[in-house]
Amino acid sequence: MTKATRTQVGIIGAGPAGLFLGQLLHRQGIENVIIDIRSREEIEGTIRAGVLESWTTELMHELGLGERMMQVAHFHSGIALQAGTERHHLDIEELTGGKKVTVYPQHEVLKDLIAARIASGQETHFGVSDTAMHGLQDHPRLSFRRSPESPTETLYCDFIAGCDGSQGPSRQAIEGRTEYSKLYPFGWLGVLVKAPPSYHELIYANHERGFALLSTRSPEIQRLYIQCGPTDNMADYPDELIWQELHTRLATQNGWTLHEGEIFQKSLVGLRSFVTDPMQHGKLFIAGDAAHIVPPTGAKGLNLAVADAVYLYRGLEQFYAGGGCGRLEAYSATALKRIWRAERFSWYMTTMLHRNPQENAFEQRIHLADIDYTVHSRAASQALAENYVGLPLDS
Amino acid sequence: MTKATRTQVGIIGAGPAGLFLGQLLHRQGIENVIIDIRSREEIEGTIRAGVLESWTTELMHELGLGERMMQVAHFHSGIALQAGTERHHLDIEELTGGKKVTVYPQHEVLKDLIAARIASGQETHFGVSDTAMHGLQDHPRLSFRRSPESPTETLYCDFIAGCDGSQGPSRQAIEGRTEYSKLYPFGWLGVLVKAPPSYHELIYANHERGFALLSTRSPEIQRLYIQCGPTDNMADYPDELIWQELHTRLATQNGWTLHEGEIFQKSLVGLRSFVTDPMQHGKLFIAGDAAHIVPPTGAKGLNLAVADAVYLYRGLEQFYAGGGCGRLEAYSATALKRIWRAERFSWYMTTMLHRNPQENAFEQRIHLADIDYTVHSRAASQALAENYVGLPLDS
Repeated sequence: MTKATRTQVGIIGAGPAGLFLGQLLHRQGIENVIIDIRSREEIEGTIRAGVLESWTTELMHELGLGERMMQVAHFHSGIALQAGTERHHLDIEELTGGKKVTVYPQHEVLKDLIAARIASGQETHFGVSDTAMHGLQDHPRLSFRRSPESPTETLYCDFIAGCDGSQGPSRQAIEGRTEYSKLYPFGWLGVLVKAPPSYHELIYANHERGFALLSTRSPEIQRLYIQCGPTDNMADYPDELIWQELHTRLATQNGWTLHEGEIFQKSLVGLRSFVTDPMQHGKLFIAGDAAHIVPPTGAKGLNLAVADAVYLYRGLEQFYAGGGCGRLEAYSATALKRIWRAERFSWYMTTMLHRNPQENAFEQRIHLADIDYTVHSRAASQALAENYVGLPLDS
Repeated sequence: MTKATRTQVGIIGAGPAGLFLGQLLHRQGIENVIIDIRSREEIEGTIRAGVLESWTTELMHELGLGERMMQVAHFHSGIALQAGTERHHLDIEELTGGKKVTVYPQHEVLKDLIAARIASGQETHFGVSDTAMHGLQDHPRLSFRRSPESPTETLYCDFIAGCDGSQGPSRQAIEGRTEYSKLYPFGWLGVLVKAPPSYHELIYANHERGFALLSTRSPEIQRLYIQCGPTDNMADYPDELIWQELHTRLATQNGWTLHEGEIFQKSLVGLRSFVTDPMQHGKLFIAGDAAHIVPPTGAKGLNLAVADAVYLYRGLEQFYAGGGCGRLEAYSATALKRIWRAERFSWYMTTMLHRNPQENAFEQRIHLADIDYTVHSRAASQALAENYVGLPLDS
């Protein structure tokens, strides 16, 4: 026997795109149900870095989600760009007329969103199985089981939002799509370290031995990354080697000190760029990682997912307010315009800051010249800064 | 029997670097001799496009060479950047606070410089043969013959300026140098056409069939380029095909008209980037194409040669004024700092505007996003514009 229910918007995935969309719709009185194959604990426990663009931070406040962020987050008004041993400060706040970025881990954002959702009583099913989409052209519905043993439920809805990440099924349902992708010939080895901060801002370094990134999680915990080979294994990197590489790649001419500490977590990630076009098919609209991936350089992934949620929300809001389908029909084109700009920025930062073994000495030298030009030109600094704090949603 | 003479600065090469250096030194009363293996007719008759950065134009005036330029040149206050069929105007003059570029062919600049040099009575030998450098560490001297039948002459000098182009011998004399180079997997097919102007500014277009560039030589003559394969032959491009490609690549949504006319000259050129470091060795200093090559996108080649001449002149001027060797010793580092920025800009424009057959669909799409971002962001527009009119000599 199949249980059947109905809502206005069925959302697959309780990540940033799905949860922001759910809260935006709820605030407007638009009913929605979120399902996710993961448990709440798994979602909240997946440690992810996070840099919120200035408008994303504002949206958190607008949605009443700013309180814990204000207590826990760090607000960065600048970054350091390093070419070899030359470290340059970019005053992001001054360059953008007062904007900052908020360093607040993604899983903390998700905790705030989930808590608010649960408190508001909106229907949410974690740990579902056998999710499937049906009738995308005319009669959209989702089917799923609350647990592997539960009966199949059918959720009838007006629209389906596919916010199910890069591995989810919703992208596959978009027929005739074009996929664009690039796999970079390097990855990031990240470590979490028990140590005091070594620097008050993020440092992005292009060293001849490869990229390095220093960031601060908290006064006690630091997050550091080094560029590694695309097929390297964790076993290739004993702690001693990691510290040696970090000391070498982040060294400056005038004797700055990198504080060591216990490495209590290591991770390896490949870098890739991905975009699918279009992002809609019938009554299905996809958002976030389901539609696009950026390499972590520049920290755009989370913000792109939230931007998609806002664009999709605007389309749904117009529709339910009786304003027609204009914005919904334009969703993909509207979102992709900004997505490609963020993809460009992430590609540019990645290209400028890494040593690509497939590039020759001229190209590697060009990237150092790019850093040199960027930090010495006010216009180029402003271009980097405006992307770093986030391009406007409307342009 | 060997004739021996003496001067302060021996200059090899009567191209932009050598001739500007000669005029700058002459103005300061520093004696110099220029020799070139080419005849005056050959130098003045080698048709080359030319876009002068704003400071280069000012330098022409400073040296009393502005008169014919003011009559013949075009002054461009903007350019058009085209992605597919979308053409965008960049108001270079407004973006740079009042700067323009001067479209004045390189051979016209050389004619002005040579005429001024001859009029000033400075020693200049065209059509020399058997040029050689000696004693670069301590006793620099040049040997050459005024013609293949003439006796070998020796020119003793304090310093030698190697301004002998990319094929000249002076670069080879710099021991222990590092050479950086990149060959692009495409070239330019250029045509000169008897037709009225089709547009009032230069148009740089990235079309899926490849790059195209439209420029105006005079009210009667237009210069147009299309991207071609690196090993294509002229025979692959009958006039009809060239026009077809130009019409296709430069077409806009709103029906702009490209005026056809008789093609009376065709040329094919490969695109490459090249830098050698250092640019000095003992008493030898190299400048211009002898030290670096840029692809023509962005029109930096001529201006870079002139900038080298200015930096080298400043070093020589300091030395002869009794100020020591500080600037001369720093010549290479000073010049290379700006050279790498210009190499970066030329690489960036080339990469953004061409279809690289070695790049995948993602990367090609990123370049369109780069154009889109550049024309819509004031900061990015300003960054492009400040490079287009020329970065300052001192920074």
